[in-house]
Amino acid sequence: MAIIINAPLDMHLHLRDTEMLNIVAPLSSHTFSGAIIMPNLVPPVSTKEELLAYKNRIHQACRSDIFTPYMTLFFKPTYTKDFLESIKDELTAIKLYPAGITTNSEGGVDGFSVEELAPTLNAMSELDIPLCVHGETNGFVMDREAEFVSIYEMLASNFPKLTIIMEHITTKESVEALDKFENLYATITLHHLLITLDDVAGGMLQPHLFCKPIAKRPEDREALRKVALSGHPKVMFGSDSAPHPQHAKEACGCAAGVFTAPIALQVLTELFMENSTLDKLEDFVSNNAQNIYKNITVPKKTIHLEKKPFIVPDKYGTVVPMYAGETLAYSITNIES
Amino acid sequence: MAIIINAPLDMHLHLRDTEMLNIVAPLSSHTFSGAIIMPNLVPPVSTKEELLAYKNRIHQACRSDIFTPYMTLFFKPTYTKDFLESIKDELTAIKLYPAGITTNSEGGVDGFSVEELAPTLNAMSELDIPLCVHGETNGFVMDREAEFVSIYEMLASNFPKLTIIMEHITTKESVEALDKFENLYATITLHHLLITLDDVAGGMLQPHLFCKPIAKRPEDREALRKVALSGHPKVMFGSDSAPHPQHAKEACGCAAGVFTAPIALQVLTELFMENSTLDKLEDFVSNNAQNIYKNITVPKKTIHLEKKPFIVPDKYGTVVPMYAGETLAYSITNIES
Repeated sequence: MAIIINAPLDMHLHLRDTEMLNIVAPLSSHTFSGAIIMPNLVPPVSTKEELLAYKNRIHQACRSDIFTPYMTLFFKPTYTKDFLESIKDELTAIKLYPAGITTNSEGGVDGFSVEELAPTLNAMSELDIPLCVHGETNGFVMDREAEFVSIYEMLASNFPKLTIIMEHITTKESVEALDKFENLYATITLHHLLITLDDVAGGMLQPHLFCKPIAKRPEDREALRKVALSGHPKVMFGSDSAPHPQHAKEACGCAAGVFTAPIALQVLTELFMENSTLDKLEDFVSNNAQNIYKNITVPKKTIHLEKKPFIVPDKYGTVVPMYAGETLAYSITNIES
Repeated sequence: MAIIINAPLDMHLHLRDTEMLNIVAPLSSHTFSGAIIMPNLVPPVSTKEELLAYKNRIHQACRSDIFTPYMTLFFKPTYTKDFLESIKDELTAIKLYPAGITTNSEGGVDGFSVEELAPTLNAMSELDIPLCVHGETNGFVMDREAEFVSIYEMLASNFPKLTIIMEHITTKESVEALDKFENLYATITLHHLLITLDDVAGGMLQPHLFCKPIAKRPEDREALRKVALSGHPKVMFGSDSAPHPQHAKEACGCAAGVFTAPIALQVLTELFMENSTLDKLEDFVSNNAQNIYKNITVPKKTIHLEKKPFIVPDKYGTVVPMYAGETLAYSITNIES
C-alpha cells in the first residue's frame, strides 16, 4: 500500500546560504512543493534586491524545478506601504524576531509598542501580507513562549485584519490562544510533536535535539499533537529545519536547531498512521497552509510513501539530521510532478 | 582583610578512581578537611574490602594528609546488621540511588517498599549510620525531584530514627520538606546556588553546566539560596563535584556533572559576601555537617581567602572546571593545618 501526499508544504524553513544552502536546498526541494524561507541571514534579508538575489541563489541550489521558495523579509518597523507594494509580488510574508532571541536575530524588534509597529503592520494588513512571529520573551527558558502569548493577543486585537502566524509553537498556552483570536494561526515542527525536554536533557545531554524554542513538557507536546493530528484548520506544518555544521552542534555552547527536512514526511506519515489520523495528514502538511496563505500558488507534486525501512544517513554534507543512523518505518518511494 | 574558614567539609563528593582520582583528590584534599565520598564506582563500593581498598587509594592520591575521606557504601537492601556492625568504624554513611537515575547507578533501588528496605534501614537506624539519597523519580526531568518528595516522606515517617540526607537538592519542594520531618536533612551544591536551567539551555547549550538533578527554575534557586545563606541548621554544603574527562562532556550525549571542587570555597565566599551573610558561611560549609553527622571527626584546617583575582585554569588534567578561564574575585591565600 502506498500513501500519497499531494503538494506538501513546509511553512517554516531555514535554507541558509552559500555551502549550506547547496547542501540543504536540494533536499527540501526534492520532497516539498514549496516552503516559507526564513530571512535570518547575515545580514538579514530586508531589501528587494537582497530578497530577489537570495531567491535566485535558492533556485540555483534546488534539485527540483517544481519547488517554490516563498520569500520573506526580516521585519523592520520602518517598512513603508510604498515599499511593501513595490515588493508584494515577490514577497509571501514578513518574519518578526524579538531582538537577540535566536540565531541571527540581533536586528529584531526590541519592544512591542503598537505605535511603533502600527505603520508597517497596518500596511501589511491592507496588502494582505501575513506576519510570521518568533514568539518568545527574554524570560526563563521554559516560560518564554507562554509569556509571549500576551504579545500575540496585543497584536491580534490591535491588527484584526492582519494574518498572524505563531511560528513553531511548543506550549499548550499557544494552542489555547489559537481559538481566542480569528487572525491567529500557527506552525508546528516535526520535532516538537515528538520530543520533550526529557529527550534533550533528561538522560545524557543531546545537542542535536537542542532548539529554540526549547522542547517543553509532556502536556505541551500532547496539546500540539492534538491540534496537528486532528488537522486543526489554523495549524500548519513548518519544520523549522535549521541546519548547522556538525562542529557547531557538538561544540561547547552548541547552536540551536534540529535538521529534519529530509526525514519530515516519512516521520509525519508514521506519526499520523500510528495515531489513526492519516486522513488528516494532508490538511496538516498542505491544505491548511493553502487556506491560510491566500497569496501562494502551489506547484503540483505527489509524494508516494511505503512502509519500508529507511536508514537515515549519519550526515548530509556537514549536517547531522534528526534520527541520524536510525531506521525509519516509512520511505519515500516515488515523487511525481 | 582575610576571610578565614575553619574545617571546611564537602558532604557530597565524587573522587572517581585511577587516573581521575589522581587528578581530583589532590584538589579537594588541599582545601577541605574532609568529604563524604560517593560510592558509585564501577562496580559500586559495596563490601568492606572494596571500601577499605578505595579509602587506601584515596589516601595515596591526596595532596594533604590533613583530609579525611568519609567513606560510604552503595545502598543494597540486603545489608545485614551484622555486616554493618562489622564495618561501622570505617563507614560514615550509605548512599541510596534509584536504579539508573544517574552516573553508574544501574545497581540501585528499583522500588521503594518499606518491607523490602526495612531490614537494612532499621539496622542503620540502630547503628546511627546516616542514609544519603539521590532523590529523583524516572519522571519528566523538571519534576523528578519534586515527585520524589513523597518517597522522602515515606522514608522519614517509617524510619523516624534514621538520619536521612536529601542529596544535592534543587527545588523549593525539597526545601519545604526539610521542615516537615525532624530526621530530614539536605546537601546543596555550589552550582545549584548559582545557575538555573537558563544557564544550561537558555542561550547556547552549555554541557559543562549539565548535571543531575538538572538546574531548575529561578524560584527554586531562590529557595536554595535562602536556606544556604541563612545557615539553616539542616543544610550542608555538598559540592557534588563530579569530574568527567573533557571528551565525555563535550561529546554528543554529554555526561552529567559539574566540576567545582577547586573553586568552591572561593565562589561560596563571594556569594555569602555579596549577600552580607558571611557570618553564616562556616555553618554552611562546616558546623552544620558536624552537628548532623555525629559519627565524624574533623581534622583541623584553616583556609584563608582574600579579595584577590583568581583566574580559573582552563583544565585540571583532562577535566574542565566550572568557570574555566574566568576570573573569580576571591583567592585562597593560605592554608593552615
